[in-house]
Amino acid sequence: MRALAEIQVIPIGVGVSVRREVIRAHDVIRQTGLTTELHAYGTNVEGDLDAILDAVKAVHESLHAEGTTRLTTALKIGTRTDKPVSLAAKLFDPPSS
Amino acid sequence: MRALAEIQVIPIGVGVSVRREVIRAHDVIRQTGLTTELHAYGTNVEGDLDAILDAVKAVHESLHAEGTTRLTTALKIGTRTDKPVSLAAKLFDPPSS
Amino acid sequence: MRALAEIQVIPIGVGVSVRREVIRAHDVIRQTGLTTELHAYGTNVEGDLDAILDAVKAVHESLHAEGTTRLTTALKIGTRTDKPVSLAAKLFDPPSS
Amino acid sequence: MRALAEIQVIPIGVGVSVRREVIRAHDVIRQTGLTTELHAYGTNVEGDLDAILDAVKAVHESLHAEGTTRLTTALKIGTRTDKPVSLAAKLFDPPSS
Repeated sequence: MRALAEIQVIPIGVGVSVRREVIRAHDVIRQTGLTTELHAYGTNVEGDLDAILDAVKAVHESLHAEGTTRLTTALKIGTRTDKPVSLAAKLFDPPSS
Repeated sequence: MRALAEIQVIPIGVGVSVRREVIRAHDVIRQTGLTTELHAYGTNVEGDLDAILDAVKAVHESLHAEGTTRLTTALKIGTRTDKPVSLAAKLFDPPSS
Repeated sequence: MRALAEIQVIPIGVGVSVRREVIRAHDVIRQTGLTTELHAYGTNVEGDLDAILDAVKAVHESLHAEGTTRLTTALKIGTRTDKPVSLAAKLFDPPSS
Repeated sequence: MRALAEIQVIPIGVGVSVRREVIRAHDVIRQTGLTTELHAYGTNVEGDLDAILDAVKAVHESLHAEGTTRLTTALKIGTRTDKPVSLAAKLFDPPSS
């Protein structure tokens, strides 16, 4: 089943700056081969639902293995049966003023 | 890896009332055998991360198979390596007034 | 406008344990007089939308004033015009097995 | 207090396609004068926390006034006291392969 998702990873206990862990999480997601779009509040992804859920698991496993003690991930998943899903189609052109 | 999660399923296109689909989603989650706690904004679960991710997939598959055209799930996942996770421990007693 | 909401406050940089700040956030929300229901992934609230948004602001102001350097809040807000909203009505009885 | 936020508006009961309402929500946010960045899972904003919360309220009021019966908004809010917040600074450059 194809899906779209937004993955936001929040490391807890690494200090006020979480940049290193957030970059690493994005990298783990990108290395899965999923289509990704990075933005200020997470990584949007497009692909098979299994692959997306595997990517989320890989992020938790990788960051814990590399020393992050606690992680919270906020995930949004979208699926539909009436037509193909894509990040490009979801991202409409905003109306001109 | 043990995890806690909150799963909120939002069916799109079934009308203003989404009660039937939300009840069904909770039932699918509960039938996986995960520890569940229902509240007004979703189902909190405790269990193996794989089982939690499988439950989310099962919700999308079941509801689509039963006629829901579009689904958005909001998922929060928490893992930590310093001590066991549990819904009971996470739910602190609020301070008395 | 009446609304339901879920407020989850995540302090960043206070360490692996965030219990003290999460209890404090819940307390700030509760002191606004909103109807609240605490669960493992946040505080569900029922009340006027203005009051709910004010409560979120009060949490950020209070916790920052008390020393938390960085805060992320995840908020879900629900409103509808066809009938009154309430946490009790939203929380359906799960079907018996 | 300056803040960053992500605002995702989900209209319930308007049908499987929610494009018209989502475009309208983005437009309401943009008209507040906040710095906005549209992506496939919402609108990221930068500005005063009061203005951000007002924008969320304006979205609910406008869409309800224009006929949407039910709305769910998912909002993430970030504030910090150690340095200025900005969408640009939050959006790190992803590492090259």
